[in-house]
Amino acid sequence: MSFPARTNTAEIELGATLQPKFGSDGLIPCITQDIATGQVLMFAFMNAESLQHTLTTKKATYWSRSRNKLWCKGEESGNIQWVKELYTDCDQDVLLIKVEQTGAANASCHNGYKSCFYRQLESLDEAATGTNFKLAFNSQPLFDPKEVYKKK
Amino acid sequence: MSFPARTNTAEIELGATLQPKFGSDGLIPCITQDIATGQVLMFAFMNAESLQHTLTTKKATYWSRSRNKLWCKGEESGNIQWVKELYTDCDQDVLLIKVEQTGAANASCHNGYKSCFYRQLESLDEAATGTNFKLAFNSQPLFDPKEVYKKK
Repeated sequence: MSFPARTNTAEIELGATLQPKFGSDGLIPCITQDIATGQVLMFAFMNAESLQHTLTTKKATYWSRSRNKLWCKGEESGNIQWVKELYTDCDQDVLLIKVEQTGAANASCHNGYKSCFYRQLESLDEAATGTNFKLAFNSQPLFDPKEVYKKK
Repeated sequence: MSFPARTNTAEIELGATLQPKFGSDGLIPCITQDIATGQVLMFAFMNAESLQHTLTTKKATYWSRSRNKLWCKGEESGNIQWVKELYTDCDQDVLLIKVEQTGAANASCHNGYKSCFYRQLESLDEAATGTNFKLAFNSQPLFDPKEVYKKK
C-alpha cells in the first residue's frame, strides 16, 4: 500500500485527502484515545508499514523504536486496541486514533495501567517555583506486568 | 529553573518525581487536551524553556520548530490555553496538558478550528484496500485566519 504523496500546503491543510508526513526517520507520531471516554491512552510512532497494518487489521499497530520492529499492540498482553476512527492534524504530521481498548485487563500501559498517563504534577504552583516536582498517581494498575509479560 | 535529572528506569516509570526527557534536539512532545470535553486540541513540542514558561505563567507555551522560537499559544490570536493539569507518560518522554481554551473564537488551530484534528478518514475499510484515502471534515472553523493573523 502506498499513501497519497504530499502535494502543497493548501491541499495538505484544507484538502480532503490523507497525505501523511512520515519524518526523515520514516515515522509519524500517533496519539491514541479511548473512543468511549476520550482518555488519552498512549503516544507512540507509526511508520508506513504499521499504518498499513493498522488499517488492514483494525488493530492499532505501532513501530517500536526500542525493538526496531512492528508492534501490534496487545499481541503479547492480549490488550488489543481496535481502531474505530483515524484523524490527522492540520499539517498532517500527526495521527490520532480512537480505539476500543480490549483484553482481560483492558489496559494500555506495559506497567499495567489503563493509560500511560497515570501520573500528574501534584501542584502546578509549586512546580512553577522550582521547588516541588512531585507526581501524584491518578489510578491503580489493572494487571501485574510480571504476570502478563512472562519470560519465555 | 532546572528540572530533576533522569535517574533510573524504576524511578522514571514508577516513581513520584517529574523527570522529563528532552530529546537530543532538546524537545519533548506535548499533547494538549480540552479539560472540559477531553477533546485533543493539538500536538506540539516543548523545550525546557517553554515548559518553564508554561509552569510560571500557566499559559501553554511550546517551542516552534518552524519559527525556532518560544511560542506562547494565543499571544497573536488571543486564544490562550490556560493549563490546569500536567501529566507525563510511563517513560516520561511525553507530556500531556489539560487546558481551558479561551479567547474570542475559543479555537486552537491556526486554520480556525477548535482542534487541529478536524479531519478524519471517511472510511477505514476503503483506506484498508488502498483505494480511498478521503478525509471528512468533522467541524466548522470558528474564526477566519485571514482576519486574525493579519499581516503587520
